[in-house]
Amino acid sequence: MRVLLTGVTGFVGSHLATYLSEKGHVVFGLIRKPIEDENLLARLNTVSLCHFNEDTLMDLMAEIKPDIVIHLASLYLTVHSYNQIDNLIKSNITFPTKLLEAMSANNVTKLINTGTSWQHYNSAPYDPVNLYSATKQAFDDIIKYYTSAKGFSCITLKLFDTYGPNDTRGKLISLLDKLAQKNETLSMSAGEQIIELTHIDDVCAAYLATIELIDKKEPNSNECYGVSSNEKYKLRALVDIYEKANNVKLNIKWGERPYREREVMDLCKNLQNIPKWEAKISLFEGLKIGNRV
Amino acid sequence: MRVLLTGVTGFVGSHLATYLSEKGHVVFGLIRKPIEDENLLARLNTVSLCHFNEDTLMDLMAEIKPDIVIHLASLYLTVHSYNQIDNLIKSNITFPTKLLEAMSANNVTKLINTGTSWQHYNSAPYDPVNLYSATKQAFDDIIKYYTSAKGFSCITLKLFDTYGPNDTRGKLISLLDKLAQKNETLSMSAGEQIIELTHIDDVCAAYLATIELIDKKEPNSNECYGVSSNEKYKLRALVDIYEKANNVKLNIKWGERPYREREVMDLCKNLQNIPKWEAKISLFEGLKIGNRV
Repeated sequence: MRVLLTGVTGFVGSHLATYLSEKGHVVFGLIRKPIEDENLLARLNTVSLCHFNEDTLMDLMAEIKPDIVIHLASLYLTVHSYNQIDNLIKSNITFPTKLLEAMSANNVTKLINTGTSWQHYNSAPYDPVNLYSATKQAFDDIIKYYTSAKGFSCITLKLFDTYGPNDTRGKLISLLDKLAQKNETLSMSAGEQIIELTHIDDVCAAYLATIELIDKKEPNSNECYGVSSNEKYKLRALVDIYEKANNVKLNIKWGERPYREREVMDLCKNLQNIPKWEAKISLFEGLKIGNRV
Repeated sequence: MRVLLTGVTGFVGSHLATYLSEKGHVVFGLIRKPIEDENLLARLNTVSLCHFNEDTLMDLMAEIKPDIVIHLASLYLTVHSYNQIDNLIKSNITFPTKLLEAMSANNVTKLINTGTSWQHYNSAPYDPVNLYSATKQAFDDIIKYYTSAKGFSCITLKLFDTYGPNDTRGKLISLLDKLAQKNETLSMSAGEQIIELTHIDDVCAAYLATIELIDKKEPNSNECYGVSSNEKYKLRALVDIYEKANNVKLNIKWGERPYREREVMDLCKNLQNIPKWEAKISLFEGLKIGNRV
């Protein structure tokens, strides 16, 4: 199938674009500016990179005419400031609304969207952890217009934390890797929060399962699934697994930092996983540094 | 109370600003550019008009320090084009998000928001009639972040159609007024759609009831009510009432135009009216041209 992705320069997008090419799909990636990172460019060598701006999106959609669009691009901000609101809404609501409008104008009606478990603080039907996750929910409302009025079918995958090779986001596992390599100390919270980490290869397999599922859906359908492994540990226990997997002892001072405002202490329990998929890579294997280079 | 309004140059906003001044509130109105319409400017003479742009909003909020903010500004589009998406989202999501952020930074936490019955096509919990109403729902999701994480209390009033004096929006009743004055013919749809019209004075009273209600609400509350009169007629019957009220016979060709895509044929039945309020102005009285000059 012809699959168009947004966010191919990101962690999930770059892995997914390559993965879907390997599975035989014809993959197009929307990019706003030339990719300067040569490693990333090499990894994306099976992907047709399509330069676009919002004036050319409509024509580009007509030219590519994909069977499915997978929307991954987003601006993530854990906390926001007043001056970031413009970009947050442009990236997470305005751009993807234009994407849907360009799809609609060209009779491209199958969308796989990416949400976050953080739309469900304390497992609520909807309670956003932060403004970022509120913009994700807001875009879900926009999608509803296109599924209801314009014959779209949409499946939204709600991701938890992800990890794997080529992760330049500076998240938890990267911090642990640095700590393992240097003789430094890291101050952390008390570490009682439950963490759900899904390996990027498993995440890619979840999108593939979604492509197969959405292909059978009728117009006007709008569904939402989680992408969650079955391994759930407190942060402290996760670090124990990391230490065993890599045969290291990390110098972490637990309880030296306060929990964040609205720290997510427990997992979202009301998301059903995408059918015909389960995570296959154990944390013990996935966390080995040697498996992530 | 000190009440800050957005959208004071609009139909509902201009009436409400004046009405709340008459009821003894100190009313501030946010405006982006000088008002050139002298009639409007005269009508708003009891309102403190505050020029702002999005760079000065934060400071202005600190200066005004209102007890309550009433958000009425919006960009209404029955149908949209690709090129209007930027403005639609800026007006209906980005600007009001900045408004909430400026409120939050200044400990102003009481918000009366304005929604539309069109968020509920066929009385669904949520199904937007058009992209405009999807942006209204999207902003509701942004509000949820502020009520949940920032201690706001919010009441959203969902309006149906409104009418009254000084209505320059070119909506149905203005069309009928023109028709009554000239010997012209108007082509209409079959006219079977049910219409709900609330007189602007009744709408203003609904906002006043909401001010009294929100004043007693705890932080973290988020409620939604309708503002609906009890007179519901098919469009054809409404025109009959108009003709009787004004002792005229209008030259309307029914059925000459098709219904609009997603024409709203029936009223939204799942909105409970704002407590301690009911509409007092009958259509027969309200529709008299003499009562609307």
